[in-house]
Order: sequence, then C-alpha cells, then structure tokens
Amino acid sequence: MARNIFDNSTFFSEYMKLRSEKNYNDLLEQPEMAKLLPPLSGKAVLDAGCGYGANCRSFSECGAERVVGIDISKKMLEKARRENSLGNIEYLEKDMADISDLEGPFDLVYSSLAFHYVKDFEKLIQDIHGLLAPRGVLLFSQEHPVVTATKDYRGHFDDFGHYVFGDYQAEGKRYGTWFVKDVESYHRTAATILTTIAKNGFRITDVIEPVPSSMALRERPDLEKDFIRPTFLIVKAFKDTY
Amino acid sequence: MARNIFDNSTFFSEYMKLRSEKNYNDLLEQPEMAKLLPPLSGKAVLDAGCGYGANCRSFSECGAERVVGIDISKKMLEKARRENSLGNIEYLEKDMADISDLEGPFDLVYSSLAFHYVKDFEKLIQDIHGLLAPRGVLLFSQEHPVVTATKDYRGHFDDFGHYVFGDYQAEGKRYGTWFVKDVESYHRTAATILTTIAKNGFRITDVIEPVPSSMALRERPDLEKDFIRPTFLIVKAFKDTY
Repeated sequence: MARNIFDNSTFFSEYMKLRSEKNYNDLLEQPEMAKLLPPLSGKAVLDAGCGYGANCRSFSECGAERVVGIDISKKMLEKARRENSLGNIEYLEKDMADISDLEGPFDLVYSSLAFHYVKDFEKLIQDIHGLLAPRGVLLFSQEHPVVTATKDYRGHFDDFGHYVFGDYQAEGKRYGTWFVKDVESYHRTAATILTTIAKNGFRITDVIEPVPSSMALRERPDLEKDFIRPTFLIVKAFKDTY
Repeated sequence: MARNIFDNSTFFSEYMKLRSEKNYNDLLEQPEMAKLLPPLSGKAVLDAGCGYGANCRSFSECGAERVVGIDISKKMLEKARRENSLGNIEYLEKDMADISDLEGPFDLVYSSLAFHYVKDFEKLIQDIHGLLAPRGVLLFSQEHPVVTATKDYRGHFDDFGHYVFGDYQAEGKRYGTWFVKDVESYHRTAATILTTIAKNGFRITDVIEPVPSSMALRERPDLEKDFIRPTFLIVKAFKDTY
C-alpha cells in the first residue's frame, strides 16, 4: 500500500494553502490536461488520485454520466464529498496499487500528478487497460522523470539558468521533502513509462512537456524557469490491443 | 540543405579515428538498435544517414532483398562504395531534407544518430510515412533531447555526479564543437519528437534510453556516467494510419 502523506495534518493544511493560490498545477499542468480531454458527454470516467474532487466535479458538469474518484486520503475524500458532490459522482477510498476490482468499463481513466506515487507501474497500466472500454482513453500527468531522477530529490536550478540532476537511470524509490519529510515517490525513466504503455495494449497519441503560456507568465513570472527543463510529463493514449 | 560537416577533411579523419575504437555508438547505441531490428529476410530497407555503409552491409547480410543508403557526405559514400558494396545495396548522395522522391516502398526505414541534423522533423516523418509499406517499421536513434538542449552545446557533467543542462523548451538550431567548430544540429523536445510521430500515422512500440551493459562498462568504465543522464533516444514505431 502506498504511503499516504495526504492524511498527515501538517501536510494537509499546507497543501490546501498551496492549492488556494495559483500554482504549478493550475498554470502549467491543468491547462494542458484540459486541452487533451476527450468529449465526456454520456461517458464513464475514473479519476485515479482524485484528491478533493475538483476534477470529478468538472467531468460531471461536462456531461459525464458516471464519475468515480478514488484516493487513499480520507481527508481529501471528506473534502471531496463535502464540496464536490454531485449525484453521479462516487468517491472511494482506494489505493492505486490494485484497482482491478473496480467496476468498469470506463471511457476515460484520468490521473493528475499521482502515478509517481505508485510502485508497480506495469500492473497499474494493465489494471487500467482492463477497466477501459475498447478505444477508451488514458490521460495522465506526472512529475517529469528529469525531476524525479535525483536521489533525495536534490535536483535543482543553479545560478546560471541551468538545471542540475542525476541518477536518471537508477529507477526506484525516492524520498523528498514537500511540507513534511520523507515523502515517498517512484522514479521511472521516460523510456520505461512510454514503452510500458505501448507494450500493454495502448496506442500513444500525445506526449506533452508543458510550457508556461504568456498568460501564466504574467501571473507568475517565476514560471520562466520552466523553459530550462521539462517539469511535467503528460501522456494520452487509447486502448487498442492487437 | 543540411550543412555537411562530414566532408570537412579534419572532421572526416578525426571521425574515422573515433569509429575505429570502441565508442558510444558501438557500446551504447548500436546494441539497442540491433535488438529492435525486425526480421529483414526478403525486405526492403532504407538507411537514412548511412555514413560509410556498415549497417547497410549488415542489413544485406541479414537477408534484406534491397538496401538503399543515403547520405549527404561524398567522402562517406566513397568509403561505403569501396568497403561496403554488395550487389543489392544502392548508395545515394541525398539530403534528408526531402526524401519524398525516393522509390519505395520500404519495410524498414532505419536511421542511426542522424535525425538531429534535420531541420524540419515533421516533413521527415511524413516523407518516411509515404515511403513505408503498410506496417513498415521506422527505427531511429538520436542524441537525447536533454543532451541537445543547452545552447552552444554547453551541457556538462559536474564534479558531483550530476548533469547540468538548460534551454530545454527552446527548440531550434544549436551549434557545437565536434572535432571542428560550428557543427549544426537541431534541438527538439522529447514531446515534439514523440507526438510528431504519433500524429503522423505511426504507432509507437518502443521508446528506449539505452543504459551501458556490464560488458560495455568493463570495456569502457567511463560509460558509468551514462547512468547519470540519458544519452540517446531510440524510437521504434510502425506505419498504422487510422
């Protein structure tokens, strides 16, 4: 079972403060994810790592017929049920380590910035394949492998406009500090992520390393540094077994 | 037309010296490319940027029925014709900027470490699509975008086991020194490379960032640094238009 930092109360309050301002997710990752969404009218959607349900609510409002949001954090799900409940949304406390017992089929499996917490990526992709309808879409974002690579998360920008990283080819567990100590995640190379998807019955249609828009830069000029290195990796693929 | 450093005589002699030793290409890139080759018996193969024809010779020896090698360097092609001529190999002096007029169809378009010299990547991919038979394979390697990114090719390893790079999202021309000054190439992000392939009628099956084998490390212990950052990007895809 993945370690659940989101129920740590220090983490939870700091995270909520972060999410209440315009941040990376809002300005860099979410706009690109939104562009890649397929039409949702009448569709069944699974949001894996749904957090407090903001996207589940949007999917429902965009016409999805059934929305399932899963998360391992009780606190996130409480907030989701309180603030983002609509009749056709179901929130479940569930680890992504095994989602094969969810009731499909889904037309879209969506996941924003959560897959880097999952240890067994191939099982995850196979489970998703099993849950998707034929031609169903997988759309996910995660931290970019160049960012997750460095052991102890010590990748950093230097004073000369460069990014410094290492340990790229050493896949596995990483520990970092994000409000609280010892946040666990898993580093995988871009090659592993993409080949695992391609080999498990998916056709990749989009690989995106988002760049800040001029609007985003006006709002947060420090996003300028996201031209130096790729920050997120977004992949869209559809189920298409041969 | 791409600038042709390979006919610069300083470059040519230094390059030949490099290729006569066991190097990156032999130890890191070529073994992975070989693993990904489809069966060649009775097939037609285009080698785009064939250099002095060592791979064209192998393809022919592996049973390919027709092999076409193209390169912009007269010197390389002279050596290819002198040393790697077999009855079913044709060598052509040709820039990859426009290969739409070659006579297809090919079952495999192969290219080793040459695509980063091509300015218009989408045209290249579309030309290759036009030359391939249905289900024909595209297999190519290039310098990794993390390596091509930094302007003036100033990406480097620091003293702490890290790699330092920048300018990742600024695609376009790069100048570097490789035996001679001002070697021109083009930086593209991994996202651009992969999405361009996916959007132009290909199904991606493999994305590889090769790691040195233990055998390679015994031969050249300095390859250890290739665990720090990805050095090459290899992509295999097949023509599969919807």
